Amino acid sequence: MAKLWDKGYRLESLLEAFTVGDDWRADARLVSADCVASMAHAAMLESIGLLTRRDAEGLKRELGAIIEAADRGQFTIQPSDEDCHTAIENRLTAVLGDAGKKIHTGRSRNDQVLAALRLWTRDFLFAFQESCLSLSGQLLDFAEKHRMVPMAGRTHLQPAMPSSVGLWAAAHAEELIDEMLLASTAFHLADACPLGSAASYGVPLPLNREMVSDLLGFDRVQNNVLYANNSRGRVESIVLSAVEQVCLTLARMAGDLILFSLPEFGWFTLPKELCSGSSIMPQKRNPDGLELVRAKAAVVGADLDAVKAVVRGLPSGYHRDFQLTKEPFFRGCETGLACVRIMDLTVSKLSVNVERLAAGFTPDVFATDRALELVAEGLPFRDAYRQVGANLEALRGRDPVQAIGLRTSTGAPGNLRLDVPREAAAKAASAVRARRERIAGRIRALAGCDVPFFRDPLQDR
Amino acid sequence: MAKLWDKGYRLESLLEAFTVGDDWRADARLVSADCVASMAHAAMLESIGLLTRRDAEGLKRELGAIIEAADRGQFTIQPSDEDCHTAIENRLTAVLGDAGKKIHTGRSRNDQVLAALRLWTRDFLFAFQESCLSLSGQLLDFAEKHRMVPMAGRTHLQPAMPSSVGLWAAAHAEELIDEMLLASTAFHLADACPLGSAASYGVPLPLNREMVSDLLGFDRVQNNVLYANNSRGRVESIVLSAVEQVCLTLARMAGDLILFSLPEFGWFTLPKELCSGSSIMPQKRNPDGLELVRAKAAVVGADLDAVKAVVRGLPSGYHRDFQLTKEPFFRGCETGLACVRIMDLTVSKLSVNVERLAAGFTPDVFATDRALELVAEGLPFRDAYRQVGANLEALRGRDPVQAIGLRTSTGAPGNLRLDVPREAAAKAASAVRARRERIAGRIRALAGCDVPFFRDPLQDR
Amino acid sequence: MAKLWDKGYRLESLLEAFTVGDDWRADARLVSADCVASMAHAAMLESIGLLTRRDAEGLKRELGAIIEAADRGQFTIQPSDEDCHTAIENRLTAVLGDAGKKIHTGRSRNDQVLAALRLWTRDFLFAFQESCLSLSGQLLDFAEKHRMVPMAGRTHLQPAMPSSVGLWAAAHAEELIDEMLLASTAFHLADACPLGSAASYGVPLPLNREMVSDLLGFDRVQNNVLYANNSRGRVESIVLSAVEQVCLTLARMAGDLILFSLPEFGWFTLPKELCSGSSIMPQKRNPDGLELVRAKAAVVGADLDAVKAVVRGLPSGYHRDFQLTKEPFFRGCETGLACVRIMDLTVSKLSVNVERLAAGFTPDVFATDRALELVAEGLPFRDAYRQVGANLEALRGRDPVQAIGLRTSTGAPGNLRLDVPREAAAKAASAVRARRERIAGRIRALAGCDVPFFRDPLQDR
Amino acid sequence: MAKLWDKGYRLESLLEAFTVGDDWRADARLVSADCVASMAHAAMLESIGLLTRRDAEGLKRELGAIIEAADRGQFTIQPSDEDCHTAIENRLTAVLGDAGKKIHTGRSRNDQVLAALRLWTRDFLFAFQESCLSLSGQLLDFAEKHRMVPMAGRTHLQPAMPSSVGLWAAAHAEELIDEMLLASTAFHLADACPLGSAASYGVPLPLNREMVSDLLGFDRVQNNVLYANNSRGRVESIVLSAVEQVCLTLARMAGDLILFSLPEFGWFTLPKELCSGSSIMPQKRNPDGLELVRAKAAVVGADLDAVKAVVRGLPSGYHRDFQLTKEPFFRGCETGLACVRIMDLTVSKLSVNVERLAAGFTPDVFATDRALELVAEGLPFRDAYRQVGANLEALRGRDPVQAIGLRTSTGAPGNLRLDVPREAAAKAASAVRARRERIAGRIRALAGCDVPFFRDPLQDR
Repeated sequence: MAKLWDKGYRLESLLEAFTVGDDWRADARLVSADCVASMAHAAMLESIGLLTRRDAEGLKRELGAIIEAADRGQFTIQPSDEDCHTAIENRLTAVLGDAGKKIHTGRSRNDQVLAALRLWTRDFLFAFQESCLSLSGQLLDFAEKHRMVPMAGRTHLQPAMPSSVGLWAAAHAEELIDEMLLASTAFHLADACPLGSAASYGVPLPLNREMVSDLLGFDRVQNNVLYANNSRGRVESIVLSAVEQVCLTLARMAGDLILFSLPEFGWFTLPKELCSGSSIMPQKRNPDGLELVRAKAAVVGADLDAVKAVVRGLPSGYHRDFQLTKEPFFRGCETGLACVRIMDLTVSKLSVNVERLAAGFTPDVFATDRALELVAEGLPFRDAYRQVGANLEALRGRDPVQAIGLRTSTGAPGNLRLDVPREAAAKAASAVRARRERIAGRIRALAGCDVPFFRDPLQDR
Repeated sequence: MAKLWDKGYRLESLLEAFTVGDDWRADARLVSADCVASMAHAAMLESIGLLTRRDAEGLKRELGAIIEAADRGQFTIQPSDEDCHTAIENRLTAVLGDAGKKIHTGRSRNDQVLAALRLWTRDFLFAFQESCLSLSGQLLDFAEKHRMVPMAGRTHLQPAMPSSVGLWAAAHAEELIDEMLLASTAFHLADACPLGSAASYGVPLPLNREMVSDLLGFDRVQNNVLYANNSRGRVESIVLSAVEQVCLTLARMAGDLILFSLPEFGWFTLPKELCSGSSIMPQKRNPDGLELVRAKAAVVGADLDAVKAVVRGLPSGYHRDFQLTKEPFFRGCETGLACVRIMDLTVSKLSVNVERLAAGFTPDVFATDRALELVAEGLPFRDAYRQVGANLEALRGRDPVQAIGLRTSTGAPGNLRLDVPREAAAKAASAVRARRERIAGRIRALAGCDVPFFRDPLQDR
Repeated sequence: MAKLWDKGYRLESLLEAFTVGDDWRADARLVSADCVASMAHAAMLESIGLLTRRDAEGLKRELGAIIEAADRGQFTIQPSDEDCHTAIENRLTAVLGDAGKKIHTGRSRNDQVLAALRLWTRDFLFAFQESCLSLSGQLLDFAEKHRMVPMAGRTHLQPAMPSSVGLWAAAHAEELIDEMLLASTAFHLADACPLGSAASYGVPLPLNREMVSDLLGFDRVQNNVLYANNSRGRVESIVLSAVEQVCLTLARMAGDLILFSLPEFGWFTLPKELCSGSSIMPQKRNPDGLELVRAKAAVVGADLDAVKAVVRGLPSGYHRDFQLTKEPFFRGCETGLACVRIMDLTVSKLSVNVERLAAGFTPDVFATDRALELVAEGLPFRDAYRQVGANLEALRGRDPVQAIGLRTSTGAPGNLRLDVPREAAAKAASAVRARRERIAGRIRALAGCDVPFFRDPLQDR
Repeated sequence: MAKLWDKGYRLESLLEAFTVGDDWRADARLVSADCVASMAHAAMLESIGLLTRRDAEGLKRELGAIIEAADRGQFTIQPSDEDCHTAIENRLTAVLGDAGKKIHTGRSRNDQVLAALRLWTRDFLFAFQESCLSLSGQLLDFAEKHRMVPMAGRTHLQPAMPSSVGLWAAAHAEELIDEMLLASTAFHLADACPLGSAASYGVPLPLNREMVSDLLGFDRVQNNVLYANNSRGRVESIVLSAVEQVCLTLARMAGDLILFSLPEFGWFTLPKELCSGSSIMPQKRNPDGLELVRAKAAVVGADLDAVKAVVRGLPSGYHRDFQLTKEPFFRGCETGLACVRIMDLTVSKLSVNVERLAAGFTPDVFATDRALELVAEGLPFRDAYRQVGANLEALRGRDPVQAIGLRTSTGAPGNLRLDVPREAAAKAASAVRARRERIAGRIRALAGCDVPFFRDPLQDR
């Protein structure tokens, strides 16, 4: 098929294979988004007299048909198409003739890609935030249920102080909820309409950028047209950075669970349907899911590094280098979401072994408590500290549950204040919902139906 | 001097040298912050009856004296102190006896370090945001002044479309202003009080965490005590990530200016006082400052990677590994701020060479304009595109300024809408100012005087 | 199909999808390698009496059939197979019954994967080294042809000193040749046989590891069995590090060519069949291939970081995390090779514009030459330096070719000493050839035919 | 003091502070190396008639005096000097007048820095390789001593198979020895003389590059002068990459020891003089040294990333950006060496707790052994695997030492073949020694005494 920039000569086939790469495959994700963005662009072109009503209607109808076809898996992109944008424009031209050739008036592939990526990104972030909030809700329920189950807190991995399963679970819930601020900031930066920026410098046409932005439910026009282009890869890096932070939290949880499920601890048990086996050792039940959650935090970090490294040295304006930000961006986002879902599944099926947890309370875990009792009796802390350290055995037999109960200041094991994260989570969830509904309404109004821009590969298998 | 954890034996000297590293040196930054946090902790201990009024007053007085001494460069930390916290507690004990030994009641070095880092971070972020907004203001003025100075926009680094110096400058201004959202989100995450979390698990004492938080002007208590510890390194990485994004923007500006100041372009001129020379080539004037701004974006990225890589694999709870997040955090923050200041200086002294810029408008730069004229005459865009491409010479002699004027949609070269970023910048600046004043007021109330927690090394030289 | 570790219960489908990921797809690369390694293992098991001759022969025949089927694209791995090893063992068991069940005696998937990866890696490194040496040869020819074509050398990107196109091309050739040392070291580390290490700890069977190693043409047995496992991901990182260094060299070349082909320079011209166009600007010919070579250096670096980050925190022994090193390893290797091929194509078609290059010799380029003339007349260098800097215009009209001719010390523009890199390249090429032939001979002896373990995706399209 | 490139105007002080940074401090490391390289340069200039014998002798004498002064800590570099090269040239000029001004004839700061860095690098790599080989020797002795001490091998961190302390220690020894190949390749690349390349393009003087190279004990001249410059940062990255691989090995050892020293395991005990305590928990003995070894692998990786990221986007020729490769290079090298020394100390003092190790042999550890017994009795492996998995309790009471003894194939726990790594280590050590002696001899001949170019900061404290 014709390239958008076809000028009557052919690229070296090796170079063509190299430049297209797997981009046509990655681009399957953007078909619906590109079609909807084109609907908005066409409606605007009509409104300023650059498309006839008939052309505009034809384009809208055919774009709708492509969305439906893509939905049924019947719109495919070939390597020879280079990308989804060419595939779609070629199809429009094949069906509609001149109207298809006119859709590109006043835009460039640069702002087309930017727009499609942002529609995808907004929908991805909705799914991501909802999943994280679901997981945090599950952790808070878990924390509430195991609020008074003692678990020896550790520092330097060594037994350290009385603590609880509830504290552990709620700590991760609160962290996830705070991290929604990062996702929300990333969302805000992605929620600006780049269309009309063309190849970075605008065009000598009276485009109505505000209209396009409104039709697509964007919060605002991304004002400066060069900035719009320069933000390619950068907004992606901000989104991935938010995803990576969540992954780092999940990796810590995963590492904790791997460790505390070892036979030497036995504090938690993963059900066998979440464990795989060994090809040579018949006895093994391995926490493969958790190991991969741990490892995927590293991989998502590398995806973020890829995006940043590609754009780091680039001057202003578009460069082909940007193409290489797509694959790590999609991959990092989808990987992060998968990790959230797996942890949600894991927490929902995790067993807590109260006896083994109690057995972890060796006498030294109570040393600080004893030192503080001595402080209460008038000893300076440093002196109490030395006295207790010299006679740890005297602490055997203390009650872990009682020790938890003594920790009553805000957020301590005896006073988790689960209402605090619950309220923050509710607020975050309702903000996500409101944004999602506002945007869905706009897209419905434009396209005549709901159009999902993001599909979770794990759910679609 | 005595270690806080001294138990009567000595570490191997090689191990001691290894574990202390340069931490004692980096810690000079935290002396004031640690003292002020200790003032708040002492006031709270007094309020719950764990310190006598006399002890509390003594501690406050002596902590104030340390702040003043540090200010005059007369409070120094030795390698044998390990860190600033030990140095300060040792001094308090030397001067006050038992009262000094009591200050550590109900806290651990973990939450002490967290608190001091957050006081430093808040102040750093104020300075950073103010500098970025100053630079963006300067860029907007520059954009306004050179609003109609033509500059051939480039894609793939090749001449591409009519554009303006104004568009280029304003693009970077808007980007910086948007990036203040990242700094502001990072600030919010750092603006939670970790004190009272102790070694990660709280203590069996009725600490009033809300009181300490209020005294230090924090937005809120960081609720879950294990989360407080687990956020070590993580909040730092979020701050550094905001700094890195700004550095990436500055690196692009620097790269553009290096390129466009080459003799082959001559679009901009750096004054000689911003250029250094060569030891062997007498003619050279090199843009060393801009080259370093470009390179420092890479270095700050590596500092961020260091922080994330250190914490990535760690289980819950404190680990000594955290110590290694300090140095890259401080270094990355200070480097980022230095880059902002240098770009501010550079923009303030940059000359714009109008004739050389005009000479950059080779005929092909007008090709898209011509194609769109043909579209206006009824040709489909794809056909116009091919026709113009075949006869570029016909475009010689067009007027760049007129071409800019034709680009009138929002944010395009002929309609920069500088009011949009100006308003956003004003809003951001006023939010920073309000936060800064609120916090300064609290610190003054607590310490009896203003205490700067962050010092810009470039200004202090 | 049955998993190798099947124990009669099923994994949660979400977890299964998550843990398998795209591994089954990546594993298509390893089918031949795994089959050949299994041939060697089976032959050894027969030699120590753990397989009957009949079983061993059946296995060899069927493994050969799988290799042929894979070659014709008729052996496919399904997601339900998890990986190629399961797919192959399932097929063997389906066809051969008990003999298929016996092939896994004395090994684990861990050492199976290690072995298959190393066979692939050795073949990849052959292809990679040969491509790099081909490119360096091309660069040396280019350097010889343009030995006396003047090109103003630049520092800080500014015009600096007389130089030549030959120096530029030969510099990159020598760098590539030196980098073959890294590839060769990586090869040596990969050329050790891990089979017999099983799940990291060996097995209580009298395996003849030397025999297997010899059959597969390895240089040696990788002695310690735990080390064999612990080197998973690590050897990959060393290979990728060698690939990345080459990519960094290519990225510099690409950046130089992009810059020096701009209209403002015009020193080099890329033929149009290596340039693509713009969808909106009819005049554009963009160096997309070079831009992607530049960007891919960043991406390969991120692939290397992914591999290192995944293994960084892991304890000894196998972990599922290792699985995630496969994809970035394959991707990074194949990307690096593609970049070499593209640069080879580019250099073969590059035009050199002698007049434009000469025009780059502004008077200041001769400043150092003049200063050194003054030194020859007795002035101290520092004084000459100042005197010349004050009067650059006097240098106009000097002859660039003559200036090159004056630079006669070893490796300078007037004395490139191309014999030095040519000799080094010949030595490297002959070492690669000898290794390749030795190994191919062993594989032929074992499998009865040539078996390519690595396929270049760019050539196979 | 005067800058080498002084032209009679002053830099903005902010810019000067920014560009100099901490470079003057880092450069203290290079004083001796720069002086010795200058001795060789001066001797060569004399030999080609560009220096009188008197000038040459004066320079040599004074350079020797600077080396001695630096040795006694009496030659210091000021921020106003910018770097060591300026400080040294200024001193020479102050003492010798015109002779000092002549030393820079035919060179640039670029090749001066390159030369000094390579002298430092060669010496660093000697120290590094010797330390690694010392550690590997210690590990091999440890392995031999604990050859038959059972230790349950783990996969997925779960108990897996019979193994031994000897296998664990020897695995790491072999890995370190293999990694010496990387250090040795890095050494070879650093062992080429860059002097005479000047600012990247040579000079119009009949410099005798071979003579300088021989005087400094280099293996060869780095032929192409542009390649010499382009290798700045790149050779550093190759050296750091070798260091990082060692750090990754040490981090795994550290992680293993932290885990297996936990009270839940108790397999190893660190002596208290290698553990520090807690400021709040009197009972704690924390493995701070090991935690930092673990974390420093991440930090060294980030240092490597910094170096690579700085050079990644740069065109050919010198750029100021290179300056920023120095600090992470020095820091990464010194950090890596410190980690080796700490692990050497740790292994030398590690206690092995035989009873606790034996207690780790739960019945399931013997499952594979039993399955293979059934295979020996004629069952296919897959059937044996299922049968054993169903009845693990039957395996209680087996003898771990006997199980080790059954693993007799090469490199397995019952046949560690320690002779293999011992021989490899001896070969590596003797190659290092030979190189070191050759170079030391040359330096002595040139400078009249031994000149150490690298000083270990941990030893010098």
